[in-house]
Amino acid sequence: MASAAGSGRRIVVAVDEGEESAYALTWCLANVVSPAGGDTLVLVHARRPRPVYAAMDSAGYMMTSDVLASVERHANAVSAAAVDKAKRLCADHPHVKVETLVESGDPRDVVCDAAEKLAADLLVMGSHGYGFIQRAFLGSVSNHCAQNCKCPVLVVKRPKE
Amino acid sequence: MASAAGSGRRIVVAVDEGEESAYALTWCLANVVSPAGGDTLVLVHARRPRPVYAAMDSAGYMMTSDVLASVERHANAVSAAAVDKAKRLCADHPHVKVETLVESGDPRDVVCDAAEKLAADLLVMGSHGYGFIQRAFLGSVSNHCAQNCKCPVLVVKRPKE
Repeated sequence: MASAAGSGRRIVVAVDEGEESAYALTWCLANVVSPAGGDTLVLVHARRPRPVYAAMDSAGYMMTSDVLASVERHANAVSAAAVDKAKRLCADHPHVKVETLVESGDPRDVVCDAAEKLAADLLVMGSHGYGFIQRAFLGSVSNHCAQNCKCPVLVVKRPKE
Repeated sequence: MASAAGSGRRIVVAVDEGEESAYALTWCLANVVSPAGGDTLVLVHARRPRPVYAAMDSAGYMMTSDVLASVERHANAVSAAAVDKAKRLCADHPHVKVETLVESGDPRDVVCDAAEKLAADLLVMGSHGYGFIQRAFLGSVSNHCAQNCKCPVLVVKRPKE
């Protein structure tokens, strides 16, 4: 762990397609990342896993391989857009080294595993990422990470306008 | 909200008698507080409310006023020791302005209300404060704050030795 503010820390930021995740990243860039440089941000994005579509299929939907391919293409495009947007937010902070990591799976596992694997000094995430439905069934991603990741976890909420 | 790292932010740190809360404060001092100065730390401590003892009494314990006074004195001493320890940790960082706030009540309410009232830019806390029993009955204080406080919440876990 870094011994002084901003000396070569590895900060993992969970990125999804929502506004709150963008706000969390912006807050981190303004308030946590050292203006003197030396920190590395790793933007981690969890792509929705295929089983979601398989489950829809078994519930009675007819999914031809064309439809599946189209759904998959759409999911990939959403992922790419989320990561691109996050990278653009970082572009104003040239003193920060930025890396990206995209993995398929449950965001709770993807984000916690990434923080662990990368030996993160800090994990930053929005409070309500990954949508209402997912949260209702799986529980809050941020609560899960705050309890289960070994590193400090910063949960950022988007202020109401 | 501060626009650059460490320019006059008000950072609330939840303080209890545990080692994890001390670790969270230390981590915050090393990693969040600006070495250039300008930030204010507010150490917030929730003192256990009297109803805890009243409930013990109604469960069949004999509590004379002497015993109650003694229990109360002990609780006050524990609170004072927790706040003093936190202040000592801050003493190595003379560039930080330190304030303290002690309130009686459920720590979830005390900490969230303090963050709100003080218009905190950030709330810092340990993951497992305020004891196992309290957590089992009331839920995790850090989960509650991460979901309900408006400001960003940093949850710090003490690494296992």
